[in-house]
Amino acid sequence: MKYSNDLDFLFHPATIAISGVSEDIKKFNAGYKFMDALMKIGFKGKIYPMNPGGGEINGMKIYTSLKDIPDKVDYVISAIPARYTPQLVEDSIAKGVKAIHFFTSGFSEIENVEGKRLQSEIINKARNGGVRIIGPNCLGIYCPSGGLSFSPDLSTINGNVGMISQSGGNAAHCVQEGIDRNVFFSKVVSMGNGADLNESDYLEYLIQDNETKIIVGYIEGVREGLRFFKALKVATSEKPTILFKVGTSESGARAAISHTTALAGSDQVWDGLFKQAGVIRAVSIEEIIDVTVALQRMKVPKGNRVIIAGIGGGASVILADEFSNVGLAVPMLSDSLRKRIIDLYPSEAGRIFKNPIDFNDFETSDNFIKTIKVLDEYEGADLLVLHFAFDHFGLISIKDKEAMISFYLQLIQQVKGEITKPLAIILHSYASDSTRKIAYNAMKELNQSGLAVYPSIRRGAVAISKFVRYHQQKKRPS
Amino acid sequence: MKYSNDLDFLFHPATIAISGVSEDIKKFNAGYKFMDALMKIGFKGKIYPMNPGGGEINGMKIYTSLKDIPDKVDYVISAIPARYTPQLVEDSIAKGVKAIHFFTSGFSEIENVEGKRLQSEIINKARNGGVRIIGPNCLGIYCPSGGLSFSPDLSTINGNVGMISQSGGNAAHCVQEGIDRNVFFSKVVSMGNGADLNESDYLEYLIQDNETKIIVGYIEGVREGLRFFKALKVATSEKPTILFKVGTSESGARAAISHTTALAGSDQVWDGLFKQAGVIRAVSIEEIIDVTVALQRMKVPKGNRVIIAGIGGGASVILADEFSNVGLAVPMLSDSLRKRIIDLYPSEAGRIFKNPIDFNDFETSDNFIKTIKVLDEYEGADLLVLHFAFDHFGLISIKDKEAMISFYLQLIQQVKGEITKPLAIILHSYASDSTRKIAYNAMKELNQSGLAVYPSIRRGAVAISKFVRYHQQKKRPS
Repeated sequence: MKYSNDLDFLFHPATIAISGVSEDIKKFNAGYKFMDALMKIGFKGKIYPMNPGGGEINGMKIYTSLKDIPDKVDYVISAIPARYTPQLVEDSIAKGVKAIHFFTSGFSEIENVEGKRLQSEIINKARNGGVRIIGPNCLGIYCPSGGLSFSPDLSTINGNVGMISQSGGNAAHCVQEGIDRNVFFSKVVSMGNGADLNESDYLEYLIQDNETKIIVGYIEGVREGLRFFKALKVATSEKPTILFKVGTSESGARAAISHTTALAGSDQVWDGLFKQAGVIRAVSIEEIIDVTVALQRMKVPKGNRVIIAGIGGGASVILADEFSNVGLAVPMLSDSLRKRIIDLYPSEAGRIFKNPIDFNDFETSDNFIKTIKVLDEYEGADLLVLHFAFDHFGLISIKDKEAMISFYLQLIQQVKGEITKPLAIILHSYASDSTRKIAYNAMKELNQSGLAVYPSIRRGAVAISKFVRYHQQKKRPS
Repeated sequence: MKYSNDLDFLFHPATIAISGVSEDIKKFNAGYKFMDALMKIGFKGKIYPMNPGGGEINGMKIYTSLKDIPDKVDYVISAIPARYTPQLVEDSIAKGVKAIHFFTSGFSEIENVEGKRLQSEIINKARNGGVRIIGPNCLGIYCPSGGLSFSPDLSTINGNVGMISQSGGNAAHCVQEGIDRNVFFSKVVSMGNGADLNESDYLEYLIQDNETKIIVGYIEGVREGLRFFKALKVATSEKPTILFKVGTSESGARAAISHTTALAGSDQVWDGLFKQAGVIRAVSIEEIIDVTVALQRMKVPKGNRVIIAGIGGGASVILADEFSNVGLAVPMLSDSLRKRIIDLYPSEAGRIFKNPIDFNDFETSDNFIKTIKVLDEYEGADLLVLHFAFDHFGLISIKDKEAMISFYLQLIQQVKGEITKPLAIILHSYASDSTRKIAYNAMKELNQSGLAVYPSIRRGAVAISKFVRYHQQKKRPS
């Protein structure tokens, strides 16, 4: 099935009017905050602040109504109370506006008849007048290439991850988590109640969007189940698709209704549909990014057999358990391979040359690099995981740890170009403020050099297992 | 059953000799690092460095042998190669040493006949000569009250958590994780191969140790199953006991043998034994501390019904799911209670007054405090969880977030004394470097004021569920 790009206009408006910008920037002023976010991300078109009281903000005139704006207006952001929104829709139709994003909440998601009535009223008006609605009750769009943003501190870099989110907070979190790990976005839609444009509309759009190579989503429930499921099957056939479906518990489902009117549905049914469609199911926002990192940076694995190597006997036992628990294999190395490695070292004391491998130290950097190459050649395994445990070194001072990690990073940079297996790095367990800082800087460096890096054993194991399963499923003829 | 304090001498030696201190402090010099750790923790007795080459270190004479030390010696730390250890044991017996801690590795844990033979030799010699052995292949003891440490940067504060660990790295990690969250230790033993003193000896000691109120452990396998299980039952009847049992997978069990010679055993059997004995089973080092924090700081809950309150609709859905998934109840609030709360606020728009509760903002601090008090009085719930989501606020700049969290902390400090229900705080999802710093400082402040605080929804949910289950099980007559 082919989908059309008829929602492209949402992401590249030339002019934006923001309704509900108050002159007072000292108190929480959502209208002004959207203005600020657009200016910070570098929106190239014209911005028109609006407020019935008029006035000025940052030297810009605040218009009292849409019709007074001496320009065409493509896109309206509404930060006004719900009761004024029907008038705004009427004015937008008259002005030829193409889309309105309603940040405004207080519609069907609250338990009151008036909220539901208001939502019907604006949606009916908009549909009759040819204006599309984003929301209501949402943060709207982040799209660096179109200069749209819902936050003052998001990246201007165009990425290739497209996101649909029924929660603005979780969209904001996902984008922050991504940016922090060098994962950038093409288009992110916080869609709230989805009263006009819903999750199926956005999904169909992202399927055919050339800027989007990976589709991710936070889903509380869907309005048109069959349409969404059909689109999902098309999506996964073209792009890896990662969804975090919530509302799996009774109280979660109840919260979802109150949050965005979404009907969560049976989790078993959802799980079956996801499996059938080949969707990668994530169970947290962090996991969406963890799996994305693997998809973007790791080579395609031939199987599920992992070699794990690093420092620490206790860490090795935990790693072996965690990787096995998620369905990956941590096979014993062949005797001949083990002999090749053992022969590189003067003594076995303190070292473990099985799988996981415990180097004990990196002092002999040549041996480290030789070992990695020997492991990489080994045909009995499909992936390579290197780990570094920040708080597992008893005798080592924080200064020594800093020197050690910087030496380790140097070794990884030196050897990474020669590794042919899919490679991931785990930097785990940083408890104290000082190790945390060192770990953060090390993560940054590895992320920036395009390596798949994970902050804990469990997160690495889970992401890699979902990544491996995705490729195994893809290989199978459906 | 009553256990004796006959291992007390391990934790309070008056004099320590360290074998294997080299003059060269530039290269990795484990002997010197132990010396340094003892001096930094403030060991009050005398320290005698030893090395067959003699010389000086930091102005202190390096003795060439034990017999030359002009003082009695209570405790020896061995950082010499394995082949020299039989002689050290003989010298120690001659000198009247009470215990030797073997940091030295290269014994039964490596796959070579000589290692196994050497271990038998030193253990036999020591037992015949009346010297007890810690290890070999371990970091030994951290005990602030005795001035013992295996790391240069651990706290001097005497706590009440006693730990047994078959991994030095995981012991070091646990202590660091604890200290970072204001959890302090009475005695921590990294016991390695446990060839003389084993996990049962240390457990029996901790049961009767007055300094220890909570027992925790990292266990790869045990040598005397029946004895250990009997001791566990006594332990749990006197003190909460949290164990992280690893080697649950085939590769993990293999790694455990190579690491500390431990036979991991069937995980199903272990799980059954833990349930029978009332052990709290943790599945990570972090979780040991997470549960300890609940035990130390939360009041005893009457049941498993949780009220969750904070900001964020999407966060609320995730919280409800995660708390439900671990077996806690997130009940709907009664209509009369909901009415009392709704009446406090001017409008419902953007807020959710069910459970979880989404305040939307804390602007009206009086209302926040009034709401918390109303929730605390509610008889339909047993625990209260407040949460703060750092990266869930789209429109908010980092500066605004900082102001918001500081205002929030102030509100919590203001209201905490009046809360009668067990209380936990979750500060979740900090993706960027700047939110991480703010979150870290906020965590510190809450930890220092004695509140149970968790860095993610899942960790909070899991710790609270294990804490609740512990108290439910304790109430039941066994």
